Amino acid sequence: MEDMLLMTPGPTMVPEEVKKVAGMQPFHHRTEEFYQLFSKLNENLKKIFQTKNEVITLTSSGTGGMEAAVANLFSAGDKVLVASIGYFGERFYDIARAYGLDAEIYDFGWGNAVDLDILEDKLKKGNYKALLVTHNETSTGVTNNIENIAKIANRYNVPVIVDAVSSLGGIPLKMDEWGIDAVITCSQKCLMSPPGLSFIALSDRAWEMTKTSNLPKYYFDLRKAREGVLKPKPDTPATPAVSTIMAVAKATDMLLEKGLDNVYKKQSEYGKKVRKYVKELGLDLLPSEEVASNLITAIKVPERYKASDIINYMKEKHRVLITGGQGPLKGKIIRIGHMGYLTDEMLDKALYALKDAISSL
Amino acid sequence: MEDMLLMTPGPTMVPEEVKKVAGMQPFHHRTEEFYQLFSKLNENLKKIFQTKNEVITLTSSGTGGMEAAVANLFSAGDKVLVASIGYFGERFYDIARAYGLDAEIYDFGWGNAVDLDILEDKLKKGNYKALLVTHNETSTGVTNNIENIAKIANRYNVPVIVDAVSSLGGIPLKMDEWGIDAVITCSQKCLMSPPGLSFIALSDRAWEMTKTSNLPKYYFDLRKAREGVLKPKPDTPATPAVSTIMAVAKATDMLLEKGLDNVYKKQSEYGKKVRKYVKELGLDLLPSEEVASNLITAIKVPERYKASDIINYMKEKHRVLITGGQGPLKGKIIRIGHMGYLTDEMLDKALYALKDAISSL
Repeated sequence: MEDMLLMTPGPTMVPEEVKKVAGMQPFHHRTEEFYQLFSKLNENLKKIFQTKNEVITLTSSGTGGMEAAVANLFSAGDKVLVASIGYFGERFYDIARAYGLDAEIYDFGWGNAVDLDILEDKLKKGNYKALLVTHNETSTGVTNNIENIAKIANRYNVPVIVDAVSSLGGIPLKMDEWGIDAVITCSQKCLMSPPGLSFIALSDRAWEMTKTSNLPKYYFDLRKAREGVLKPKPDTPATPAVSTIMAVAKATDMLLEKGLDNVYKKQSEYGKKVRKYVKELGLDLLPSEEVASNLITAIKVPERYKASDIINYMKEKHRVLITGGQGPLKGKIIRIGHMGYLTDEMLDKALYALKDAISSL
Repeated sequence: MEDMLLMTPGPTMVPEEVKKVAGMQPFHHRTEEFYQLFSKLNENLKKIFQTKNEVITLTSSGTGGMEAAVANLFSAGDKVLVASIGYFGERFYDIARAYGLDAEIYDFGWGNAVDLDILEDKLKKGNYKALLVTHNETSTGVTNNIENIAKIANRYNVPVIVDAVSSLGGIPLKMDEWGIDAVITCSQKCLMSPPGLSFIALSDRAWEMTKTSNLPKYYFDLRKAREGVLKPKPDTPATPAVSTIMAVAKATDMLLEKGLDNVYKKQSEYGKKVRKYVKELGLDLLPSEEVASNLITAIKVPERYKASDIINYMKEKHRVLITGGQGPLKGKIIRIGHMGYLTDEMLDKALYALKDAISSL
C-alpha cells in the first residue's frame, strides 16, 4: 500500500518528514524532552486555531473530540440545535442524544450549506443552549460559512460549537475573531499526520459552561486536561499517543513555516482546479459552486457508471484512492479529497486517473 | 532521544520492525488492505487475551479502555468494589465515581497484593455488582493473583473486571479459563508498540450486562464497536489510529511467533534477575518477593540518596530512563520497567547503570 495515493477525506497523505518522526522510538511522556515538544505543539495549535486559549490534545479520533465538547459543556436535558448538512452533522446529533441532551436536528439537505435565514429564524425562537454545526462536511463536499453562522448565533447569545475535524488548517477559521466557542479537529486531515489525536479549544464562555456541566466524563475531562497543559512542564492526564504528538508537532511546524494564508490560498486554487476539471469531463458536482468545499469534491455519478467501478479502476490501474458516498449518497457520488499534504503532481495524477476511468469504463 | 533506553512502565521500547511499520503511510481504513490487517490483529488479540470472544480496539490510552468498561457494563448507582493496591486501583475508583457508580474502594496497601481472605469476606457480605481490580500495579511493582481473585469472585457470582493494561502479553492471564468478565490492555506496554490504542474483551456475562447499562457513551460504545469487528470486512465506528493498528498487528505477530509461554518464561527470568541484582546492591524491594512483579521492579530509595539523583544520573550518564514513585511513594522509590521488548543486553545495560549510580552518588 506504500505506493497508494490517498485522495480521501482522511487518513490523508503524510509527508516523508512526518512519517519519519512517527516511526521513531516514542519519548517517555514524563521527560523534559516531551515537555518541550508538547509546549511547542501547544503553541503551534494556538496559532492554527487562531485562539488565545489553550488547545487540548486528546488521544482519540475526531469523534472523541466531538464527544468531549458535548460531555464537558452540557448537562442532561439541555436544549441544543444541530444544524446538519450531512453525515457528520448527524453524528453530532447522535452524540448529543447519547448524552441525554434535548437535541433538535435541522437538516438543511445533503449537498446544501446552512441557510442563514432559516438558521436565524430558529435561533431567534428556539431558546437553545448552543448551536452544533459542521464546518466542512466531507460527506457532501460542502463548506459552511462559519463566520456568518457565528455572527448570527452571537446575535442571539447562542454559543457555537464547530466540528472543524476536516477543515482546520486548510481553510480559514478564526476562532476568537469570529466568536466561536468550541472548535474540534484531528490529526489526519489538514494537519498532515497519522490518525490518533483530536484537538479541542474552548472560548472563555465555553470554559465557564464546563463548570456547571453534570455529564459523566473522566478520559475526556477537559478541565483536568487543561490543568496539564497549563503546567510549566505541560503534560496529559493519561499516556498520550506520543509518536503521533511528535508527528503533529513536526507537521504543524511545516504548516506554519509555509504560512496559514499561503496554505489557504493553495487549497482554494486546488478546489477550483478540481471543480473545473470535473466539469470539463462533463460531470456534475453535488453542491453548487458557491458552497463547494476546497478540501473535498463530491461528484455525481452519471447513470451509465457504477461508483464502485470508478473507484476500483482508479485504485487498481492508477493506485489512486478516492471514496464513495455515505448514507443516502452511497452509490450516487464519488468524493475526491484534496486536503492536507498535496502537491501539484499528486493532484494531476489523481485528476488524470479520474479522466481515464471516465473515458475507459 | 533515539539513543535513550526506556526502562519505564510504558511507553516501552519498540522493536525496529514495529517502528518501521508505525512510520509507514497509514492505510485508508475502508479498504481491503485494512480489513485484512484488522482481521489479523483481531485474531492475534484473541490468542493473547485467551478468549473466544471478540477483542475491541479503541483509539485511546489504557485509561479510555478502563472507562469503556465502566460506561458499558454499569448504570448509575450500581454498587461495585474496587480492590486497590496502588495508583491505578485508585484511578479505576475515580472513573467509577465519575460515572456515578456507588463505588467502594478497599485499599490493601501500596506495596501489597490483594489479601484473598479479606477480599472473600467483603465479597460474601457486600452484594456488589462487580469487582474492579488491577492485575499488575506499576506504581508499586506488585502483581495480583488474578486466577485466585477470579475464583473467589465467581464463588459469589461477582463479575471481575481486570485492568491488565501493563500485564497482558507479559505474564499469564487466561481470561476464559479463569472466568474473567472484562480485560483491558493497551498498545505501549507488553504489546511492544507506540501508545495510542487500548483493547478490551468481555465475557458472555459482561456482554449481557451491556444490554442494561444506562450510562452515556458514544465514542466508547462497545456494542457498536463489536458490530464493526463482527463484519466479514471488520472496521471501527470512527477513524482509528491506523498506523498504530498496523504496528500492533506486526508486534503481536512477533509475540505469537515467539510463543506466549516463552515470553512469560523470559519475563519471569528477567524479574528474578532484576530482584537478585538489586538485593546484591544492598537495596530493598518495596514489595515482598512473593507478590513482586516480573514486569516492573519497585526499589526503596535508601535515606542517603535522592530518587531524582539516581534517575538523572542513569539518564544523563548511561542514557537509561527509569522512573520514580507516584502519589505517596513520590521520592521514596525508583521503578525499573522490564516489560515488553527487552533483550539481555538492554537489561544488563540498565542494571549496570543502576549499580554505577548507586556507587557513584
